[in-house]
This record gives sequence, structure tokens and C-alpha cells, in this order.
Amino acid sequence: MAPITNGRLLFKEIPVGYPIPGKTTTYDTSQTIDLETEPLNEGSVLVKTLVLSVDPYLRGKMRAPEKESYTPPFFVDEPLYNFGVGKIIRSSHPSFKPGQHVYGVLDFAEYSIPKDSTKLKVLDEVANLPYSVYVGAAGMPGQTAYYGWKEFARAKKGEVAFVSTGAGPVGSLVIQLAKQDGLKVIASAGSDDKVEFCKDIGADVAFNYKTTDTGEVLKREGPVDVYWDNVGGPTLEAAIENSALHGRIIVCGYASQYNNEEPYGIKTMRTVLSNRLSINGMLVFDLQDKYQDEFFKEIPGKLASGEIKYTEDVTRGLEKGGEAIVDVLKGVNRAKKIVVVADE
Amino acid sequence: MAPITNGRLLFKEIPVGYPIPGKTTTYDTSQTIDLETEPLNEGSVLVKTLVLSVDPYLRGKMRAPEKESYTPPFFVDEPLYNFGVGKIIRSSHPSFKPGQHVYGVLDFAEYSIPKDSTKLKVLDEVANLPYSVYVGAAGMPGQTAYYGWKEFARAKKGEVAFVSTGAGPVGSLVIQLAKQDGLKVIASAGSDDKVEFCKDIGADVAFNYKTTDTGEVLKREGPVDVYWDNVGGPTLEAAIENSALHGRIIVCGYASQYNNEEPYGIKTMRTVLSNRLSINGMLVFDLQDKYQDEFFKEIPGKLASGEIKYTEDVTRGLEKGGEAIVDVLKGVNRAKKIVVVADE
Repeated sequence: MAPITNGRLLFKEIPVGYPIPGKTTTYDTSQTIDLETEPLNEGSVLVKTLVLSVDPYLRGKMRAPEKESYTPPFFVDEPLYNFGVGKIIRSSHPSFKPGQHVYGVLDFAEYSIPKDSTKLKVLDEVANLPYSVYVGAAGMPGQTAYYGWKEFARAKKGEVAFVSTGAGPVGSLVIQLAKQDGLKVIASAGSDDKVEFCKDIGADVAFNYKTTDTGEVLKREGPVDVYWDNVGGPTLEAAIENSALHGRIIVCGYASQYNNEEPYGIKTMRTVLSNRLSINGMLVFDLQDKYQDEFFKEIPGKLASGEIKYTEDVTRGLEKGGEAIVDVLKGVNRAKKIVVVADE
Repeated sequence: MAPITNGRLLFKEIPVGYPIPGKTTTYDTSQTIDLETEPLNEGSVLVKTLVLSVDPYLRGKMRAPEKESYTPPFFVDEPLYNFGVGKIIRSSHPSFKPGQHVYGVLDFAEYSIPKDSTKLKVLDEVANLPYSVYVGAAGMPGQTAYYGWKEFARAKKGEVAFVSTGAGPVGSLVIQLAKQDGLKVIASAGSDDKVEFCKDIGADVAFNYKTTDTGEVLKREGPVDVYWDNVGGPTLEAAIENSALHGRIIVCGYASQYNNEEPYGIKTMRTVLSNRLSINGMLVFDLQDKYQDEFFKEIPGKLASGEIKYTEDVTRGLEKGGEAIVDVLKGVNRAKKIVVVADE
């Protein structure tokens, strides 16, 4: 078999503010690959990429390597990478067979050889779901919501939860977990469509934070026992101010601040003392060992049966990956953003 | 026995910024009391005040009643109140006998009848300590340090602790508890004398935050696994910035902000996510049931034996109570501030 083109989305330079497709990232078709003869080390697998997840945290990886953060930086002239689903083409690892579908970290490339194949999870027997769901509601965003809620919410029936970016892939599961636990749920989102979606999946109160004052809603509908923070900045400030006694805040993202050079100063920290709040920063990987089995037992089945709802916003073609990233950073995606690289 | 004067320190008006003795508070000698005939309801006791605690949080009680806070406001024309030690003069409660010494909330008055005598603790059999210590290292400040450390520090040998207001009655016990647990301790204080005291009680690194940059010290000596926050503001901001992965922050006071009208904005909240911090506001009363017995079993004995050190800064005479409060708010006291009202 002759070598074929291996299209890749490369990281080219560190952006200031929003990334610029074609400048920050470029789609590169200069590499070729022979699927039959490409060398495979013992324990490695060659994967064809089907679906890639696109998440706001990727912006945090587009930074100078010397800046510390919770996630390693991308390297210039190398492909981006993120969670995705692929199909095994060839395998020199006993746990994987050609034709199997796997979930794990994959390059933004049509074909790749993951660095650590032991971290791939075979999907074919989990639940009857489209593979794309495994990068969304059944993937990292879903796991983030589930792990964080289980670990930090200490939810009690009748309490009030507030979820920012309620229509996003993390927030939408948090809303549904909070409803399952019997809480009143307030959700915020950045468009009227998203607000409607929050209501569809069970939020008791949902509002467009661009046209409605967050503090006023929380004052009227709160105080807030559990705040799921995906955005930081003024929303976090308002949630602290309108917290209930012994409230819990789960800090999971700071979408409002990803592209800000000068961070916003939170002026309501006194309330952390007066209401004896518990604020916990969370990263899904820290909690994986504790909750992953429980998650795969419970959530994919509920997604397949429709008991838990999800949505997707699909970009077709890896060459449009750069635009897909800008979409999630600007919040113009309508749901969990995925890039479909190939159909099978 | 003829009626005698019952001197009282009254709250007169809500201050802007620092309270002003003679204006915010006045010493009043217009009330008289007949110790033998003053009526006592069933279950009440008449107490002679010996020692009163003076703490920064009293400023928070000098506010408009409609403003919410973690502690109820003082009422205008009524005496201030705080933890103190007194002697039972007369009792109509079976648990208390004349001559016994009790610890609890007492009015800033020479004599008073506490609203709820069941909350008083008889001291005569606890440990051989001067009664004044029961409002400091063996009282609310000591309990605050002990309860908060036990509940939230999750301290591990070899970790780094940072304690602000390290020479204060809370901070100085936190330093010693952290050393007992095998941590490296960094302490900050507001004068060179206080810095020396921090070192005397075991701090590995101590600095005057007025002349040394907190962030630089923490950068050099950290990162900080456990930060005990008594001050809020820029110190909290620097501690968050210089936190270790999975660091814990115990928010116990905001001394830098008590007299500020415009609160300081904390710009480092991103690090709560990147380092997955746990920030917990604490109030001693929340944890009293859980830790009080353990505290009284362990700490007064160690204070009596000298294994744990403490200091006091004594104001003699209730009429100087207003000045004592300003001292602790400005941080010019040299140690735990107490007012000795009477000797026995």
C-alpha cells in the first residue's frame, strides 16, 4: 500500500488573546504515512482518529512552556492533542486489536501512535452510544461534572445549586446531577438558545448572563448552597456574595478569564469567612482513580437510554479544528464541540 | 449591703474606620447594683467579671444591625460583650456555686447576669493556669487555632505552612501546632519584636510584612502547602499565588480589611484551579462540639507545663477597654490583648 497524506493541525505560535486559525494553528498536509509499514514499537498501536474533543482549556496549553499551569503546554510545530476516539489500525500491544475503538488522548492528526497506549480505553463493550459521545457527556467533560459533584458538592435535597455555562458539556451534566439529588437549580448561559436548553434538561431558573445581572438573579433565587464555577471573574464574585452559610464552590474553569491578560480581582472574599465557605479547585485527572469505574457503570447507560440528555455541535474536518477552538473560547458553539475527523 | 457602681463599657455609635474611644464606646458609671438583692431568675447566675478578651473581630460587631455577618452586631447603648472569665457571686442554677470561676461570654461590665448560663464552663478543675489564659491561648483564640488546624490543615510532615499574624493569639498557636506536626513554618508579623516572638516559638522563617515583600519570601521559602489566613487582602493573594499543588488555605480573619470601606480584589483565583486548592472559611463555634473536649484535654496542660508558649498584653481597668480595642485593630498590641477588670 502506498503512503497516504496524514493531515495534522499544528501549533505554530503563542497567541495573544484569542488564537487565530492559520497563524496560531495551521493545517499541515506535508506528512505522509504508510499504514502497513509505519514502524511500531513493542506495546504501541497505530490509531485512525475519528472524533476529537474541543474544549476551552486548550487555550491554556497555547502558552510559553516556562509558564506553569495545571496542564502541559503545546509544543510549537507539533500537532495539538486532546481526548478523542479512534480506531485501532495496527497493534503491537496484546490488549488492543485492529478494528477496536478506543478512547484517550490523540493527536490532532488523521493517524497517530499515542505515546502511552496503556491509557487508552477500549469502548466496544461499554454502551450502545455514538462514539462522539465519548468525548463529551461520556468523556472528559462528563467525567469532570460527575467526579467534581460526587467529591465536593455534599448536596442535600432542597438546597440551591447555581451552574455557570449551564448549556456546556460539563454544566449540562451538573444541572442534571443536581436535579437527581433534589436541588433547585439556577443556570446561566450566554445565549437565549442555551438558556432554553438549560430549562429543557431541568434547570428551575435559567438566564442569559449577557442580558441579565447574575447578582440580582442569585439574590432573588438563592442563597446558593453549591456553586459550580466554570467561568471565574465577576460571576464567581457574585456567587460568593450570594452564597448560603456553609456553601460549597467547585472551581472547574475560568472561561471568562482565558483570554484576559489582566485577571479580574475578586472583592467578596470576606464572605468566605462570614459564610464559612468551602472552595475547591478540581481537575478531573486527580479524581479519576476514585470515580472512573462508578462513572462508566452509571452514566453511559443513562445517556443511551435518554435518562440523561446531551447535545453536540459538530465540526466536520480536521482542517477546521482551529476555528472550532475559537468557537468554544468565544462561546458561539451551541453545545459540546467536537471535530469529526473521519467516519470509520 | 448598699448598692455599688456597676461600671460598663457601652456601644454608642457605629464607627467609620477605626472606632474612637469616648465616641464609639463610652465608659458609663450611672448604673448601680445591689449584689445581695439583684433579682435572679431560676437558672441564672450573677457574675463578677475578672478578665475580658479583646479581639479584632469585635470591630465586625460595631455595624448597622441590618448588615449581615457571621457574628451578631452590638446594640447601641448596651454594653459590649466578649469571652471572659468571671467569678460566681450568686447562683440560682444547680451547676454553679458562689466562688467558682467560669469561662464564657460576659458583658463589658463589672457585674452581669449572662443570658444563657448553661454555656458557661467552670474552670476550677481544668489546669493550674492564670485565669487570663482562658481568654487567650486556652480560650477562643487558642480554640480557633486548634479546631481549624485539626479540621482543615491535613498537615503532613515535611510540608510548608505559612501563618499570617504569627505573633497573635491564634497565629502563635498555629505556628506551634504546625511545628508539632513536623512542618516547616513561615510566619509574618507587623513588627520586629513580633517577628522575634514568632522565631522564639519555633517559626523557621519569620518576617515583618511591613518591610519585606510577602510574595518574595513565599517564592523563596515555599511553595505553601497550608496557609493560615488571618488577614485577607494582598497577603491572601500572595499565598494563593505561591501555593503548592493541592494546598489548603484556612480563612480565619481578614484583619487587613476590617477598617477598609472598599475591599481588596484578589487577582490570583486562577491558581485555585491550577493548583486545585481547598479554601475553607472557619468559625470556632461551628467546630466546638467536635473538638472542645479534645482541646481542653490537651492544650491547657501543655500551656501550664510550658510545652506550648503564650504571651499576654494586659490593659488594667474596664474604662480603658475602648483603647484596647483600637490597639488590636491597629496591631500595636504586643501579644494577646486582655482587659483585667478585677483581680478576684
